[in-house]
Amino acid sequence: MSEDSNLLKESTSMNETMVEEVEERDPESNPLNEPLLKRNRTLSSNPLALVGAKVSYIESLDYEINENDLFKQDWRSRSRAQVLQYIFWKWTLAFLVGLLTGVIATLINLAVENIAGYKLLAVVSFIQNERYLTGFFYFTGINFILTFVAAILCVCFAPTAAGPGIPEIKAYLNGVDTPNMYGATTLIVKIIGSIGAVSAGLDLGKEGPLVHIGSCIASLLGQGGPDNYRIKWRWLRYFNNDRDRRDLITCGASSGVCAAFRAPVGGVLFALEEVATWWRSALLWRTFFSTAVVVVVLRATIELCHKGKCGLFGEGGLIMFDVSDVTVRYNVMDIIPVVIIGVLGGVLGSLYNYLLHKVLRLYNLINQKGKMYKLLLSLSVALFTSICQYGLPFLAKCTPCDPSLSEVCPTNGRSGNFKQFNCPNGYYNDLATLLLTTNDDAVRNIFSTNTPFEYQPSSILIFFALYCILGLITFGIAVPSGLFLPIILMGSGYGRLLGIFMRPHTNIDQGLFAVLGAASLMAGSMRMTVSLCVIFLELTNNLLLLPITMIVLLIAKTVGDSFNPSIYEIILHLKGLPFMDANPEPWMRDLTVGELVDVKPAVISFRGVEKVANIVNALKNTTHNGFPVMDCGVVPTTGVANEATELHGIILRAHLIQVLKKKWFLKEKRRTEDWEVREKFTWVELAEREGNIEDVAVTKEEMEMFVDLHPLTNTTPFTVLESMSVAKAMVLFRQLGLRHMLVVPKYQASGVSPVIGILTRQDLLAYNILTVFPHLVKSKRK
Amino acid sequence: MSEDSNLLKESTSMNETMVEEVEERDPESNPLNEPLLKRNRTLSSNPLALVGAKVSYIESLDYEINENDLFKQDWRSRSRAQVLQYIFWKWTLAFLVGLLTGVIATLINLAVENIAGYKLLAVVSFIQNERYLTGFFYFTGINFILTFVAAILCVCFAPTAAGPGIPEIKAYLNGVDTPNMYGATTLIVKIIGSIGAVSAGLDLGKEGPLVHIGSCIASLLGQGGPDNYRIKWRWLRYFNNDRDRRDLITCGASSGVCAAFRAPVGGVLFALEEVATWWRSALLWRTFFSTAVVVVVLRATIELCHKGKCGLFGEGGLIMFDVSDVTVRYNVMDIIPVVIIGVLGGVLGSLYNYLLHKVLRLYNLINQKGKMYKLLLSLSVALFTSICQYGLPFLAKCTPCDPSLSEVCPTNGRSGNFKQFNCPNGYYNDLATLLLTTNDDAVRNIFSTNTPFEYQPSSILIFFALYCILGLITFGIAVPSGLFLPIILMGSGYGRLLGIFMRPHTNIDQGLFAVLGAASLMAGSMRMTVSLCVIFLELTNNLLLLPITMIVLLIAKTVGDSFNPSIYEIILHLKGLPFMDANPEPWMRDLTVGELVDVKPAVISFRGVEKVANIVNALKNTTHNGFPVMDCGVVPTTGVANEATELHGIILRAHLIQVLKKKWFLKEKRRTEDWEVREKFTWVELAEREGNIEDVAVTKEEMEMFVDLHPLTNTTPFTVLESMSVAKAMVLFRQLGLRHMLVVPKYQASGVSPVIGILTRQDLLAYNILTVFPHLVKSKRK
Repeated sequence: MSEDSNLLKESTSMNETMVEEVEERDPESNPLNEPLLKRNRTLSSNPLALVGAKVSYIESLDYEINENDLFKQDWRSRSRAQVLQYIFWKWTLAFLVGLLTGVIATLINLAVENIAGYKLLAVVSFIQNERYLTGFFYFTGINFILTFVAAILCVCFAPTAAGPGIPEIKAYLNGVDTPNMYGATTLIVKIIGSIGAVSAGLDLGKEGPLVHIGSCIASLLGQGGPDNYRIKWRWLRYFNNDRDRRDLITCGASSGVCAAFRAPVGGVLFALEEVATWWRSALLWRTFFSTAVVVVVLRATIELCHKGKCGLFGEGGLIMFDVSDVTVRYNVMDIIPVVIIGVLGGVLGSLYNYLLHKVLRLYNLINQKGKMYKLLLSLSVALFTSICQYGLPFLAKCTPCDPSLSEVCPTNGRSGNFKQFNCPNGYYNDLATLLLTTNDDAVRNIFSTNTPFEYQPSSILIFFALYCILGLITFGIAVPSGLFLPIILMGSGYGRLLGIFMRPHTNIDQGLFAVLGAASLMAGSMRMTVSLCVIFLELTNNLLLLPITMIVLLIAKTVGDSFNPSIYEIILHLKGLPFMDANPEPWMRDLTVGELVDVKPAVISFRGVEKVANIVNALKNTTHNGFPVMDCGVVPTTGVANEATELHGIILRAHLIQVLKKKWFLKEKRRTEDWEVREKFTWVELAEREGNIEDVAVTKEEMEMFVDLHPLTNTTPFTVLESMSVAKAMVLFRQLGLRHMLVVPKYQASGVSPVIGILTRQDLLAYNILTVFPHLVKSKRK
Repeated sequence: MSEDSNLLKESTSMNETMVEEVEERDPESNPLNEPLLKRNRTLSSNPLALVGAKVSYIESLDYEINENDLFKQDWRSRSRAQVLQYIFWKWTLAFLVGLLTGVIATLINLAVENIAGYKLLAVVSFIQNERYLTGFFYFTGINFILTFVAAILCVCFAPTAAGPGIPEIKAYLNGVDTPNMYGATTLIVKIIGSIGAVSAGLDLGKEGPLVHIGSCIASLLGQGGPDNYRIKWRWLRYFNNDRDRRDLITCGASSGVCAAFRAPVGGVLFALEEVATWWRSALLWRTFFSTAVVVVVLRATIELCHKGKCGLFGEGGLIMFDVSDVTVRYNVMDIIPVVIIGVLGGVLGSLYNYLLHKVLRLYNLINQKGKMYKLLLSLSVALFTSICQYGLPFLAKCTPCDPSLSEVCPTNGRSGNFKQFNCPNGYYNDLATLLLTTNDDAVRNIFSTNTPFEYQPSSILIFFALYCILGLITFGIAVPSGLFLPIILMGSGYGRLLGIFMRPHTNIDQGLFAVLGAASLMAGSMRMTVSLCVIFLELTNNLLLLPITMIVLLIAKTVGDSFNPSIYEIILHLKGLPFMDANPEPWMRDLTVGELVDVKPAVISFRGVEKVANIVNALKNTTHNGFPVMDCGVVPTTGVANEATELHGIILRAHLIQVLKKKWFLKEKRRTEDWEVREKFTWVELAEREGNIEDVAVTKEEMEMFVDLHPLTNTTPFTVLESMSVAKAMVLFRQLGLRHMLVVPKYQASGVSPVIGILTRQDLLAYNILTVFPHLVKSKRK
């Protein structure tokens, strides 16, 4: 018990949230579906998760509307002007989220293009002068330093800034708060780290980080400023509740995708299909507004930079990988290569998921050993990447330029399709075109259409193999890293390779093969459909490609789903985040919630007017976050005498702590008047989740006093009958975004408690239920 | 009471579902927000709706999973092979929905293009020979005959085929079944009627009807064939339940939009944003699959028809209104015309909604007078349309052809941008270009880019004014009619007109002004955002237009929303369909469900083993569709004696009727064994909703026998505490798609009934609550 409250204490204090002790075990002895985290074999297991390679306490969010007297009073007293003000601020915040995300995305692009650009220009000039070794040391050294900056920031200041952040955002929108995910430090580290890591030429993208950046901005705006720097605006406190923050973070996530791919509709759909758990029509509209703002910002800055005012940034318009110049012509027989791309994409995607899972488990073990190990791991990967990118092009044969093409050949700048590298004039090195450039340019080059003979099969094969290895070893290191671009690179390589083999049998352009390969691998790994389709449409600007893209995505997703879950689900599971799935398991229909609460400890409940000592004890001895409040009395209508028990509602731990802190105690056992509670508390205070029972000092005298819990009790908790199946209860829980669900008896009689148990998110997770009811596994296998 | 059961009888028999008596009242005396239908001033009002201009009984659908013993048994006994078979059929049906919708859409297009094409060719040749009067009679006569065919079919065979059908589909997916909406007759009439009405040149589209056609196909496939023709496939009965039909109809609706606009992603989003109430990730994927099939079918047929094998059909590819040839160049100052288009579009759109509402109320009165009136109304509108379309072009001045344009000028075929009409050679009549053509070609012509001086302002003004009038008077007539195309025509006219006025101040192309005008009016009237944006993107194939389209849509929707609800909501309200809104009204937080059930009649409940006479009486004397089942007994765990009441669950009227029909009676009062019920009933029978208490004959002896209701009772109804606010209860009801919600007491004591009331959809509608609690209106206004 003391360990439990210890956990709680550490989780709620801002400076140190991690529990140092983690059970070590051989990762390979673990079956795939068992998370790394230690778990108890009872249903009241501790809600822990891996946060930045450490185990942390995870709290559920309050997405349910709390209907206690105080909130009701506040809501009723709001004037029309205040309501309008609230609506105005909601839209303003959505606007600001879009604006800031757009500006930061532009800054990141600007920094990356300039840093990587000047680096590549210098390297190219070394190579032109045949100073290959100097070029190598220059290239590797700069990449090393850039990675070092990114990694040291992540390791020392914000461990949560590593990785893409998308799984944590997904969990947040599902109702789980990962500590330290949305702070100002995380935001700053993510921005700088992302610039460093991408400029260093690592096999990672800025797409995932941008989604996280968008969400951080949204969260910070929503709570009126960063927690730790004490620069909060009071008027933004309106939004310091979980529901409004959820909406804002959804806007932030869509803005991030929009900024990453310049795909406004794709961004909205990504948030809808992959990230969000609940969705409302109003939210669709607001996210759309945010992405519209982002796209306007991007267009404006592109316009501004068009005249070379932004250094090396400024080439290219709103379409990132334009393939609209190719005429898409296909007939019925072309369905065969399309199906092959889809099937192979699905197989490769799920294989990638499987292998990445293994690698991440290994990396977790390394990362847990200490900060130095994390740093060393990142730097080794950076070294390996640089060596391969610089060294491998020497293996490729020089190809003569095709004079029929209108493009410059060979090129020597930082971008361009036919890199000269070590070749004589009139020749180009096709592997250098793909490797010795930024990731974005590499995609652009491999997507290039109407150049069927640009790449030798051997070069594409080396490219594909290298990026398979890099894609597996890069993702888990301690720098901000997105998954989109590595998968696009891998997929385009495989697609183009397939295109070369199929050239005799099809009319489809080689560049389109690369596009379709990238799409199929994305669908095979991430398992999205509509949003990917729209993102690819907006990336490539070729509407006629849509039908075959759709088919490829559908096939790849179907094939992938038959092997393993999506990569985000795997990461969520690995981190131990209690994510509620959309669909209950079939065996959940065989178990009732009554049976489930039977294996839990008995419910601890309070009287409507309760002794302070009882409250303090309950808070100290349990980790529960909600307690039912019951009264004894007479049923008003029927006049049934004293034996009746009234279920008044449920009270949150956070509110009880507020009561104890503010010492809202009564000398005698009585019910209070409306004005008494309003005098002492404001709704803004009750919306806070801070405070810890260990910090509360209550004197012995006060312990004997009373508290009237009625005005602070949520009188409308959601209830289910004990005969309800877990499957149905889970749907209710997830659909309404609950935190506590009261189980009520189906019997109506005196002496029966009105609440026979409380179910929380943890109790409804399939994994937790199966530890207590192992016989259900059998029916699961049947 | 007898009238109630009479209503029920008529609604469930297939041949005659309409109640003839409708209260007449002056439509103008009605405030805008009060539906035409008669309603009682109690909460147990009859669920009636306007179906094909008659009042009909509306039943709720069972979207909740019914967990009674029989269904559970069936579900547990399903083998793995059966589950796979179920999944296989689900996908096959989604495929078939897409395939058939695609084929039927192609057939409609083919028929329309050929009928309208040959009609126009003949008219043009009359005009060329200056036989203007013959041309007029020919044009008007053919249009008259085509309209007559469409209208007579709708009036006599399927009144539900008139109109777009989208509001009814929206209501179905919300949980309300409109009778006769998805039958085979409706489908056939809709197809033929749509061909007739569109070929007749009426101001209506085939888009709405195609959505309805897709849904009809889905529904017929889902239930294994049409009800009345007795050609049902047994194996498709798997899907004869409301949940699976709901999913299929969603697929059908998306396929319809996709077929109408050749917009696969737009179709999915339309279903998501506008039509569906519940949405799951799995559904996103399945609708996407259906639309992918549609688009492949469309491409294949376009390919097939490309060589002129399909008569006059075959021009144009997958993009309907291609504007991709224009270079979109805009700077910051162009935001001003964009904002103006948006604001005006919002104002005009909501004005259109307002006026259309008035016209539809008037038309309802005319249509209710009889079939002849309906027919006459349709034919008068057709005559007026033909006269205007033929006569107005004579008012336009002939314009000399611009020799710098590459297009043929003047043209004399059925399509083309510069119609010669009555002009000399080298001249064209710009109004004839817009009016004397099919609606699709009219849109194409007015969207035409890079022709800034093609239309005179006066011609566009006449065009706009005409289509405003036609758009208002055409929609309500008794033919299948879509709303999309009339609004696009109106909007493009207004956009182009605005473009002409703004020509000196902006660089935006005139054609793009027309596109943006159409988009703004759509958003102003229909209030969609993301789906419209994608539909316009897929229609026009110009990705660079996306940012300004987004801004226009957002502004127009915002402006429109501040005046009145969307056109579909207005129609839903007018028809009296009990649609549950996504958001509860603010005053609903001030009312508890306990107060709401207090004003309802007392609950009628059954014992677990009940006398037949009681069941028959309850079914005959009420129109309730669900009854709680309660037992007296001992609480097993605590051993509290006889005074306990157990809430066993809720039983549906349909199942009780099955029991009475099959005479599953017991001589003595006892509980049955598992096998007894399985011997008598199969889950397929229980999934049926047919049967009527009036058709059941029970002898006097049988009346004294007993029925064991336990195995047929849904043991897991959703419950809410009486202290729950109506707002929260409504969210629960809608989110989970409930039909009955049990209100349980917050008091736990002997003598208290475990169920103090049942709430249904009707009870939670804002309008119904306000009739009983008029004082809430005040707080609403505050």
